[in-house]
Amino acid sequence: VAVVRVDLPERAYDVVIEPGALDRLGEHVRAVAPHARCALFADAAVARLWGARAAAALESAGFAVTRAELEPGEAHKTLAGVQRLYDALLGARLERRSPVIALGGGVTGDTVGFAAATYLRGVPLVQCPTTLLAMVDSSVGGKVGVNVPQGKNLIGAFWQPARVVIDPLVLRTLPARELRCGLAECIKHAVIRDPELLAFIERELGAIRALEPAVLVELVRRNVAIKAAVVMQDETETGVRAHLNFGHTFAHAIEATAGYGEILHGEAVGLGMLAASELAAKLGDGPTDLPARLRALLGAVGLPTRAALPDGAALDAAMAHDKKVAGGSIRFVLPRRLGEVQVRERVAPDAVHAAWAAIRSS
Amino acid sequence: VAVVRVDLPERAYDVVIEPGALDRLGEHVRAVAPHARCALFADAAVARLWGARAAAALESAGFAVTRAELEPGEAHKTLAGVQRLYDALLGARLERRSPVIALGGGVTGDTVGFAAATYLRGVPLVQCPTTLLAMVDSSVGGKVGVNVPQGKNLIGAFWQPARVVIDPLVLRTLPARELRCGLAECIKHAVIRDPELLAFIERELGAIRALEPAVLVELVRRNVAIKAAVVMQDETETGVRAHLNFGHTFAHAIEATAGYGEILHGEAVGLGMLAASELAAKLGDGPTDLPARLRALLGAVGLPTRAALPDGAALDAAMAHDKKVAGGSIRFVLPRRLGEVQVRERVAPDAVHAAWAAIRSS
Repeated sequence: VAVVRVDLPERAYDVVIEPGALDRLGEHVRAVAPHARCALFADAAVARLWGARAAAALESAGFAVTRAELEPGEAHKTLAGVQRLYDALLGARLERRSPVIALGGGVTGDTVGFAAATYLRGVPLVQCPTTLLAMVDSSVGGKVGVNVPQGKNLIGAFWQPARVVIDPLVLRTLPARELRCGLAECIKHAVIRDPELLAFIERELGAIRALEPAVLVELVRRNVAIKAAVVMQDETETGVRAHLNFGHTFAHAIEATAGYGEILHGEAVGLGMLAASELAAKLGDGPTDLPARLRALLGAVGLPTRAALPDGAALDAAMAHDKKVAGGSIRFVLPRRLGEVQVRERVAPDAVHAAWAAIRSS
Repeated sequence: VAVVRVDLPERAYDVVIEPGALDRLGEHVRAVAPHARCALFADAAVARLWGARAAAALESAGFAVTRAELEPGEAHKTLAGVQRLYDALLGARLERRSPVIALGGGVTGDTVGFAAATYLRGVPLVQCPTTLLAMVDSSVGGKVGVNVPQGKNLIGAFWQPARVVIDPLVLRTLPARELRCGLAECIKHAVIRDPELLAFIERELGAIRALEPAVLVELVRRNVAIKAAVVMQDETETGVRAHLNFGHTFAHAIEATAGYGEILHGEAVGLGMLAASELAAKLGDGPTDLPARLRALLGAVGLPTRAALPDGAALDAAMAHDKKVAGGSIRFVLPRRLGEVQVRERVAPDAVHAAWAAIRSS
């Protein structure tokens, strides 16, 4: 078992990483939010796999459990989805001290988290992530919210969980493609903050893919520690939290031009990191050996290292639409050396196009 | 001009009370949220009266102003109303640093405030209240939110404004009945915290009703100071903030049984304070002279001191539905002496019924 403490001015909470933690979910929730009732929300797919186990654990800890299911997928991360959760909470007359548990991936955590942030002006939230991506990224840090037709994550709040409960054993039902996407974010953390983590992933990749519990605990712990450190420095995303966007300026453009769903976010982030590393190397202020090392690791993981891309003008336009546009100039998070990134603006278009070319499939 | 500082751990802000402040709205907003663009939201009625003045002030301070109107009234304090504001914000591509100004009464402040709390995970909010009630109560303290069919204010957030700009001169367009309702909340503040304020209102009632600027500034300043002190002690309403609910357990039951809109909230609060004072006196631990003094002042203001009420069982049921039910027992905020209240539970039903009888019209 590993515990990472996230220590924020207004509230501190633990991220508990433990094989079998799902069966102790009730104890974990009771430790931070003792109450007679709670709500357990999952999407239909996760509910079928793990809902009964989670509910039993909550009941054995004395909770009366109200359950409701979200429709699976990013398309349902909407205000209408939140409204369904409000209705469940209101129907069960849950109170301000009743905990809400989000069981699932990032979409579930974001949607349920926003409902928890706004029901009765905020109720205790416990994140119980079931994807590697949610374990190492979205379940920690308090960013919750939903999409609107105008764009992703445009409505939301900062609402820190009371606890994050991570059971790596649930990863055995995670599709392999989703596991690979989670690894992309792990690689991202390594490149921006922790060269040792990069070596760990390279060395232990076989054990990670075999879901060896001790290695998964260590992988998740190291990643959560990085995410937590960034969040503690910058809770509401005005400074260094931008470093977590390494690869994302390119990734968002890839996702936008591919049509959402064609390529998964983690795959786009892998490609985006590669492009950003190429860009840094071309600009002469990034490590020259990083692109090859990243390409090899992404390939070993089974993540794409090239993609069919539209022409440069279409990519420029897609990047210009991104949220990271500040004052009319696109902001890139670029590696300076392994474990350290910097934000660059006003990058020469030629260099950006050359970076795109390095990941364009012929 | 008077300034009350609200000093909270995460953010501090000023409440500026100044005749003519509306014409300096742009300077006030720029002082706390300098940006190229802002949004000005008001309901249609307030927009017609004061929208052009407010917009001109913002424009003269260099803001490009996006305006949108809410439909007036509590019936539009809904998620659908918030969605209209989101659409305006998204349509104008307002950014995380773009301020949002709520110009209007409590319904506007709550609805606009919730949009500001959740757009891009929170943007700067400036409250510019135009009713006495909003000036002395809802614009300060950060409670924002909307109603759902299941009840009032059940969805929301705590989102503190960056500044509150109060121009008492706008009260000259406020209907007299609304002014009386605001005075009910002023009397509430006096009874729970400030005997001198009660004497001030009794002494200056003529000048207040004549909207004499200097007296209004003093009235609003004293009330904001009380509200701010309570909020600073208890930002998220777990303790002493409950004192602000003096009169409200009775008031909510009055409103619920009368049908919302029949009786205004401030009128119900006036009656509720009277009932609560009668109850405290009957229980032998409240000031015996308070009911008569309150009855006289409410009468002088022009607020009702009696109402047609249903029978005791219907009122009991309405009170039991109230949010202030904790652990199955109704909580009353009762005066202990003038300027001091206490929370009482498990009050004898006979005493409650006797309190109701004291305000029931024959």
